[in-house]
Amino acid sequence: MIYLDNSATTFPKPAEPLRRALEQYLQTGASPGRGGYDLAVEAEYEVEAVRRKVIRFFGGNEGWRVCFAYNATDALNTLIQGLTQEPCHVVSTRLEHNSVLRPLHHLAAQGRIALDLVPFNDQGYVEPEAVARALKPDTAFVMLNHASNVFGTVQPAAEIAALCREQGVELLLDASQSAGLHPIELEKWDVGGLAFTGHKSLLGPTGIGGLVLSPRVNPLPTRYGGTGVDSISLVHTMDYPHRLEAGTINLLGVLSLGHSLDYVTSPEHKQALARERELFALLRDGLAAIEGVELYHATGPGERLPLLSCNVRGMKAGDLAAVLDGDYEIAVRAGLHCAPLLHQDLGTSPYGSVRFSLGAFNTQADIEAALEAMTCIADVACRR
Amino acid sequence: MIYLDNSATTFPKPAEPLRRALEQYLQTGASPGRGGYDLAVEAEYEVEAVRRKVIRFFGGNEGWRVCFAYNATDALNTLIQGLTQEPCHVVSTRLEHNSVLRPLHHLAAQGRIALDLVPFNDQGYVEPEAVARALKPDTAFVMLNHASNVFGTVQPAAEIAALCREQGVELLLDASQSAGLHPIELEKWDVGGLAFTGHKSLLGPTGIGGLVLSPRVNPLPTRYGGTGVDSISLVHTMDYPHRLEAGTINLLGVLSLGHSLDYVTSPEHKQALARERELFALLRDGLAAIEGVELYHATGPGERLPLLSCNVRGMKAGDLAAVLDGDYEIAVRAGLHCAPLLHQDLGTSPYGSVRFSLGAFNTQADIEAALEAMTCIADVACRR
Repeated sequence: MIYLDNSATTFPKPAEPLRRALEQYLQTGASPGRGGYDLAVEAEYEVEAVRRKVIRFFGGNEGWRVCFAYNATDALNTLIQGLTQEPCHVVSTRLEHNSVLRPLHHLAAQGRIALDLVPFNDQGYVEPEAVARALKPDTAFVMLNHASNVFGTVQPAAEIAALCREQGVELLLDASQSAGLHPIELEKWDVGGLAFTGHKSLLGPTGIGGLVLSPRVNPLPTRYGGTGVDSISLVHTMDYPHRLEAGTINLLGVLSLGHSLDYVTSPEHKQALARERELFALLRDGLAAIEGVELYHATGPGERLPLLSCNVRGMKAGDLAAVLDGDYEIAVRAGLHCAPLLHQDLGTSPYGSVRFSLGAFNTQADIEAALEAMTCIADVACRR
Repeated sequence: MIYLDNSATTFPKPAEPLRRALEQYLQTGASPGRGGYDLAVEAEYEVEAVRRKVIRFFGGNEGWRVCFAYNATDALNTLIQGLTQEPCHVVSTRLEHNSVLRPLHHLAAQGRIALDLVPFNDQGYVEPEAVARALKPDTAFVMLNHASNVFGTVQPAAEIAALCREQGVELLLDASQSAGLHPIELEKWDVGGLAFTGHKSLLGPTGIGGLVLSPRVNPLPTRYGGTGVDSISLVHTMDYPHRLEAGTINLLGVLSLGHSLDYVTSPEHKQALARERELFALLRDGLAAIEGVELYHATGPGERLPLLSCNVRGMKAGDLAAVLDGDYEIAVRAGLHCAPLLHQDLGTSPYGSVRFSLGAFNTQADIEAALEAMTCIADVACRR
């Protein structure tokens, strides 16, 4: 099987970091921050070390915070709902994933926020000036898909952040796709924070994600419970990280994330990423040369991740993916990729596109097989 | 080190189920429900098998649902906030953990619900009639800590459910402590559902918990995002399990939970639980016989879990735990155990109590050492 659905979840995972985390958990897995004895204190210390590692990885600094969550969707809901407890205006984009669109749409439908969604241009990028024009005096924040999970286009976060900050507005990033594939410099870019997940290009397991927040961005809690501190109060604490972390933390997930971060920042993995980019160019250029294959904003200048979307003329995306799976054992994802407005604007709704997303473990043979398969399929489709 | 804080998280965990889950995840860990290729379909199939296992374990039946969550607090917030989208009356108890008290208090403080908290009696039990008397025509549900994390008392859920159902009200359980230690028969007891966590007596890892819900109990979503189905809509789906599961599921956690459930339902583990109960009786009777040790509702008739709370007269709970840890390497938990109203009523606020909570891997030597330590400490404290 050739796995080209790494944007859904990376596969395979490097086994070593996860196995190491599990053995550590089996040895020392007490409840961090919930007891005064050595094992609990040690667990707390390990968690704090991972928090610092995460902040460093995303270019945060002294005073920045990490709050762990179940997944990126959970982190994004915590962020969005926590920042909209008072009526306000929110700016986002038509590139977003449903993990951003749906909470925002829910709040707008309830009349709790006014919402403006900025379009993307004919290259698949959001123009910084378009974001700036959408800002209003009561704009609470701008929520941006840092890299499109459909096009792979990496948005100019630093430029957008600069324009937002001029008007006193925070830019917040959904880094689900970009984290681990594209450098992120929160402090340098003057971004207010981001949501991430562990199981995509950070190569960690499912069940762990989180928020990295500047001291300027302080969502109110939306989940209330035990924190191990200030238990006498019936009001959930406002202190970090407990403010946005209720109940027992995913210690195994946090430990795994810590080891995975070591892995993704190793020189070996950086070489693998460089190879992945070469393979991506091979795939993209190969697909572009096949008669009948339609690529969506996959070429042209601008930063992009090693993923792309396409269709074969005359075929529905779902049928194309089924043939790739059934006849060629190539795993890709078809459909809207949880980005309905993007496909509406692209003219590919309701069937969407087929997405090829590379991982660090793909080989040149994988890409050649994919190109051969696509050539045959497009050939048959064109002759029909 | 003698670990007697199993109510915080069980430790150690049986390694085999977790290692097996990790190897399975490394081999087949694609994104369940997010693709049409074999690996994703297989992952979905594995998740569905665990859902059925969870329902069976808690005595649910055809039509019952499992929605996975980050931890019990997450599951409880989803349940409580999802059932209180319209103004209503809620009944709970003064035995509850902050994972129930805090979301309820937040809703009450916002004027979104009216709240009545039923007291516990002088044995540490909630009386079914007291719950029945608290019901009103607009009571949406009763939320009950199935087993107190401070006293260990197991509440008469079936009796309370019967009285609630007579008035058309659903009883919902916080089974954080009881799951895996005490049989739960949701359908037979006519309970509407429960929240559980994987990392306590189900012997799974952190990061996975969930809701088990009768078809009669249908919380609205409180978290919105991608589900892999109906991606074209900006409104989060109302179909289960996606309704209460947004974003990528914790596949590693679900697989681990599945193997842990096999472990906890094995004849070997049932024997271990019987031994654990014998050791608990030894601890309780031993502590009861020590001059200067005050036990809280740890004796007397009624169902209870193998955990208890106590103090040594003249010592703060935190000091007692520190001595147990520092001088005897015995890990217990001191304080309010996230149950502030319980301690207020018990007269042990603000310092709380010391909790001894047993696990399946404790030995007679552990208990004897704990009793010897407590004898010495109490002796010194009494002579002061």
